[in-house]
Amino acid sequence: MEKYKKDLDISYTFGIFPTFELLKHKTKYVQKVLIHEKLNITKDIQELIDFCKQNNILIEYCTKQIEKIVDKESTMVVGVFSKFDSIIEKNQNHIVLVNPSDMGNLGTILRTALGFNISNIAIIKPCVDIFNPKVVRASMGALFSLNIQLFDSFDEYYKENANNNMYPFMLKASKTLQSLQDKKQPFSLIFGNEGSGLDDSFLNIGQSIIIKHSHNIDSLNLAISIALALYEFTKNI
Amino acid sequence: MEKYKKDLDISYTFGIFPTFELLKHKTKYVQKVLIHEKLNITKDIQELIDFCKQNNILIEYCTKQIEKIVDKESTMVVGVFSKFDSIIEKNQNHIVLVNPSDMGNLGTILRTALGFNISNIAIIKPCVDIFNPKVVRASMGALFSLNIQLFDSFDEYYKENANNNMYPFMLKASKTLQSLQDKKQPFSLIFGNEGSGLDDSFLNIGQSIIIKHSHNIDSLNLAISIALALYEFTKNI
Repeated sequence: MEKYKKDLDISYTFGIFPTFELLKHKTKYVQKVLIHEKLNITKDIQELIDFCKQNNILIEYCTKQIEKIVDKESTMVVGVFSKFDSIIEKNQNHIVLVNPSDMGNLGTILRTALGFNISNIAIIKPCVDIFNPKVVRASMGALFSLNIQLFDSFDEYYKENANNNMYPFMLKASKTLQSLQDKKQPFSLIFGNEGSGLDDSFLNIGQSIIIKHSHNIDSLNLAISIALALYEFTKNI
Repeated sequence: MEKYKKDLDISYTFGIFPTFELLKHKTKYVQKVLIHEKLNITKDIQELIDFCKQNNILIEYCTKQIEKIVDKESTMVVGVFSKFDSIIEKNQNHIVLVNPSDMGNLGTILRTALGFNISNIAIIKPCVDIFNPKVVRASMGALFSLNIQLFDSFDEYYKENANNNMYPFMLKASKTLQSLQDKKQPFSLIFGNEGSGLDDSFLNIGQSIIIKHSHNIDSLNLAISIALALYEFTKNI
């Protein structure tokens, strides 16, 4: 076992909550679960141990191995899993993230998507490493219940999903989210990079939208913008 | 100059953007500005230097001092300021944060509040140190344009602001944000700690509200919840 690196075939969940999400939703990708020798066996932990036994998942009680790979000293439970591919479902509602670069933000976005019943996330490369334990942790394990598919370019995504109603979110748009009446499904809500947003070419795709905000700030945070869009688009579903 | 600690009377802004926000909005609290000797003088930097000169603010060109106090190596501009008190305006719209404990989250909340023209934030102790440079950075300097007042208890806040329409956000509420028709002003949108939320006593205060989300997640992130509430409450203002 070694500290996480992008080129490893495995990654880790740190903490009991994301580890349980991993076990429940991606059982066959779990290699083993590490439990710190000093951990008190509470009801939650016993449930996790029972789940592993029922599903023939190896449990290792260890201390040094855990301390070698975790990013916070207090972590007592680690899930070790093989990275997996997934494919988004066509003709469903999608979130499309163009070049996301912040791991904590991405985790929050995944958790929020799950909170609004959006299961399909397209990510356009280059992008942050979605299996980095920081993303997994910030998503609180939402990563394991979603279909997340990487694309080399937006064109590649668009060719396969041109039937979806495209809504690029950008500061240059003239239509506001607050005034948008007609929200067509299935939708693709498209968001750019945290710093640079979407480039002008997206003004020609579908119905571009701006979330109206005060002039006191340059723009809303990416995860916040996505939450507002999801809230509005799923309000009457 | 030393690394930031809670008991210091001063704090720091790291980076040009929050430093400029500090200079513009809290000019009289600025002690000095540190500029890294290796920094290229771009147009933005020249503007900042000119602003300091016009306002008789000391600029020090240094390297070691900056490296001693910053949290990221790449920081080239630091503002040094005296901590200040501020008081919220009565009979205005407020956000009330009960025991917030995450510095990054608080920063994002402050920036979002400013983005929706909410200028008055009440914070109930115990709470995170609002002047920690991590809060300042995550707020992107929004801290300097807001009135943020600390209270020893919610009762203390309530006594002074009982005229406001109180809306506690909590998972046990029965009214959903999505269905709420009548949003009365001035409002106080009340949110609990990131982990524990508001306790049951808040069910008896004003109109409690839940933001409807899927059963796949326990709760929405605090900053996300506040953004959704602000969006909905300011939509028709």
